[in-house]
Amino acid sequence: MQHLAIQRGLRALSTSASAASTTTTASAPASGAAAATKPLVLVDYYALNDASSYAVVQLNRHPANALSLEVLEELKRTYADLNRRVASKPASPSSDKSATATTGSAAAAAADTNAPTGPVRAVVLTSAVPSFFSAGIDLGEFTKGKDHWLHYWKTLRETFLDIYTAPMPTVAAINGHAPGAGAVFSLACHHRIMLRGKYGFGLNEVAVGMPVPEWLCTVMANTTSVRTAERMLPFGSMVNADTGLASGLVDSAVDSPEQLREAALKQVLAFNSVSFFAQSFTYKNIRSSFAAHMRATEDEDMKSSWSFIGTPAFQDQLARLRASLAAKKPRKDA
Amino acid sequence: MQHLAIQRGLRALSTSASAASTTTTASAPASGAAAATKPLVLVDYYALNDASSYAVVQLNRHPANALSLEVLEELKRTYADLNRRVASKPASPSSDKSATATTGSAAAAAADTNAPTGPVRAVVLTSAVPSFFSAGIDLGEFTKGKDHWLHYWKTLRETFLDIYTAPMPTVAAINGHAPGAGAVFSLACHHRIMLRGKYGFGLNEVAVGMPVPEWLCTVMANTTSVRTAERMLPFGSMVNADTGLASGLVDSAVDSPEQLREAALKQVLAFNSVSFFAQSFTYKNIRSSFAAHMRATEDEDMKSSWSFIGTPAFQDQLARLRASLAAKKPRKDA
Amino acid sequence: MQHLAIQRGLRALSTSASAASTTTTASAPASGAAAATKPLVLVDYYALNDASSYAVVQLNRHPANALSLEVLEELKRTYADLNRRVASKPASPSSDKSATATTGSAAAAAADTNAPTGPVRAVVLTSAVPSFFSAGIDLGEFTKGKDHWLHYWKTLRETFLDIYTAPMPTVAAINGHAPGAGAVFSLACHHRIMLRGKYGFGLNEVAVGMPVPEWLCTVMANTTSVRTAERMLPFGSMVNADTGLASGLVDSAVDSPEQLREAALKQVLAFNSVSFFAQSFTYKNIRSSFAAHMRATEDEDMKSSWSFIGTPAFQDQLARLRASLAAKKPRKDA
Repeated sequence: MQHLAIQRGLRALSTSASAASTTTTASAPASGAAAATKPLVLVDYYALNDASSYAVVQLNRHPANALSLEVLEELKRTYADLNRRVASKPASPSSDKSATATTGSAAAAAADTNAPTGPVRAVVLTSAVPSFFSAGIDLGEFTKGKDHWLHYWKTLRETFLDIYTAPMPTVAAINGHAPGAGAVFSLACHHRIMLRGKYGFGLNEVAVGMPVPEWLCTVMANTTSVRTAERMLPFGSMVNADTGLASGLVDSAVDSPEQLREAALKQVLAFNSVSFFAQSFTYKNIRSSFAAHMRATEDEDMKSSWSFIGTPAFQDQLARLRASLAAKKPRKDA
Repeated sequence: MQHLAIQRGLRALSTSASAASTTTTASAPASGAAAATKPLVLVDYYALNDASSYAVVQLNRHPANALSLEVLEELKRTYADLNRRVASKPASPSSDKSATATTGSAAAAAADTNAPTGPVRAVVLTSAVPSFFSAGIDLGEFTKGKDHWLHYWKTLRETFLDIYTAPMPTVAAINGHAPGAGAVFSLACHHRIMLRGKYGFGLNEVAVGMPVPEWLCTVMANTTSVRTAERMLPFGSMVNADTGLASGLVDSAVDSPEQLREAALKQVLAFNSVSFFAQSFTYKNIRSSFAAHMRATEDEDMKSSWSFIGTPAFQDQLARLRASLAAKKPRKDA
Repeated sequence: MQHLAIQRGLRALSTSASAASTTTTASAPASGAAAATKPLVLVDYYALNDASSYAVVQLNRHPANALSLEVLEELKRTYADLNRRVASKPASPSSDKSATATTGSAAAAAADTNAPTGPVRAVVLTSAVPSFFSAGIDLGEFTKGKDHWLHYWKTLRETFLDIYTAPMPTVAAINGHAPGAGAVFSLACHHRIMLRGKYGFGLNEVAVGMPVPEWLCTVMANTTSVRTAERMLPFGSMVNADTGLASGLVDSAVDSPEQLREAALKQVLAFNSVSFFAQSFTYKNIRSSFAAHMRATEDEDMKSSWSFIGTPAFQDQLARLRASLAAKKPRKDA
């Protein structure tokens, strides 16, 4: 049974239209029927073994996974739900062995008929949209005034932290372009695999006229090095799979969607090869210092963000960009 | 016109005697006629395009660019002046487009008849002295008592920070030896290109019996890695262009003065290929944490510095070294 | 004479039974005759030149250098003694030249008839036990209750810091397996050389179900990079000499015990090739920030450590592991 479930997991990673029977969304019932019929984030659960499962989370906002507020909120709800389904609360090593139907997380899983055999040990984050992991911030989000922007930016920060500090690790399967904020969530992950090809990955904010916020500079420095961040970010540099591998931005590069699925699953199995408790606390010991710093500087970052987004110059530049994009393609988002 | 100006910029980089017509110094008129006739720091401006220029700053204290207090003060004044001529005050993105004759910086430029077409977008820091980028601290500075030393050391720290935190980026074109403090200012720069050859570059303080101050250890760690700093600094290790490239101390290595000029200009154009505002704020977001730390520990560093320089043992050792150098060569400085 | 002494030093590194005439232990006389007859830590002193010596410290608890409390205490006493015999108190550069019989350290050396020509300039830390540098924490230490564990853990932390902040540098000659805490003290050293072969080196805590404490995650990040620590520690990854070299965990890899001795001695000579004062203060400037952090978080770390070790789940798992080991081999420690 385990093997079959893993095979299904592989398929879910390979198709944008996942099998309905194993797909759920993180939407609360209150979020309405419309969201349920066209989920922005697809979530599939597969058994790893009798005791636990893994989840495949796919961004699913066509045509480019532009990050609207709704996508962020859906992703945030997804991780809240995954946290409830976590393999075991890593509060003590005892739960490593006793992660059975009596734990709260398994009870939560049982309450959802779409959920499979056991609590979630690891996550794969990928895209269900061809050619794009995510195009980054939906340009429309910049134009809705200060209050909306601050809410949006706060949600983006929190979603990053939800992934970054989740008790179960996430592997990003980067199967398309991932510029700017489109790369941010994969940088919150615990492992990054990138598909070779024409795709670009990286914090290219400066190339489109925006500064990179301090916390994201630090994320880049922690992923590569202080100097690599300093050599890439001020030029809006992006990488492909191989240059990303060389600079440490991604952990492995693969040649095909099939290899991407295999590598992602192999990483899930690697996560699961050691004690969940010990692994989770070790990630926490590595990551809690930056997470605390990011939380402590929230006010400053929010203020700094609006001090740029709110300027007439940026809004004018944005209006010209949107007009130019609209002239090229009749896309709702980019 | 742009092309010609760039060609002139290339020539300025290649000769120690820059064309008088395009050369100015940062000296305030109060600094006297003697300084004006033999400038310790040469500054040339060249047009990048109709809207902005770049500056070539050459250390010019023969025979080895030993860093006397006067050189530091001249370099400090140079950066103060460059800051006034900056491409645009990066306070908001609006100034990116409106950097015209109405800005304060352009007004300052207009007031100086030596200044060319527009405000300064980037800087090249190099040496006008054959074989030396800079020999480091002028040995005479160590011998003038506590008050003088503290003033000197404070000026050196501030000059480092002026370059490190300048709104416009600097590329160091390292065209000769750069030991100890002779390497420090290039480590403050945003990009380092080094000429291959017999030249040594690096913080070799320990090799000449001096400890490396904490802030400089951190600069080295940020440029390479904590461990690389720990492997090099306690041994006073220096690099040539290729070993510097391998360790990350320099960003590129070139074979000839011509290639050095071309690479420096290429880097200036790379700086200029993206929004000045976005780039400048991104550098700030990467660098402000260290700059704040360096400022916060000034008192401690000043005290620590004199606790070493002021010892009879160091002063004795220094006297022997100066006597030995004097016996070898009739140089005024080294 | 210097050459002969160095040759003897080489031999001491090569044999587990050092020549009695040059071997001493750090034990205070109060530690009893039993310890003197079977020292857990062997210490040999050899002349580097007329003015100073180096020490070879060998862990000597057969069969695997499992770290009992007594081993830690002996190692701690060893470094306390080495500090007294240090080449010169690096309080000022003057002592660099005047490290003679009038200094306190030389006086201490003179008081011990086993000590050779001069104060200690550098240390080699290695193992006198075949195949093991150190097997890590003696499993018995986990089973003696909260007070004992807290005392043990505090002693381990302090021993790490004693090596990490010692005025004279230590080179680790890793001549066997070094898993978990068996790698910790070598990570406190200033240089690491590892013998090629079947040996594993690294913080494999997670592979045996234990989280890596925050301070040890930071040590790993400082030795390699934040991301390398994040890629290795949550999986309990270990390295051999060559993969350790590639990741920066070790500084060189050698093929034979002879090469290990030569490389260790070469590193001692490299340490001694520059001013002790300048080197020692530069190490301090690089390392004091982490040392202060480690000291400041002691309470938190002690609490966190017991919150894991004290759980019934861990104690049960440990009991099973010890039973399984006892069934396999009649070893007293592992």
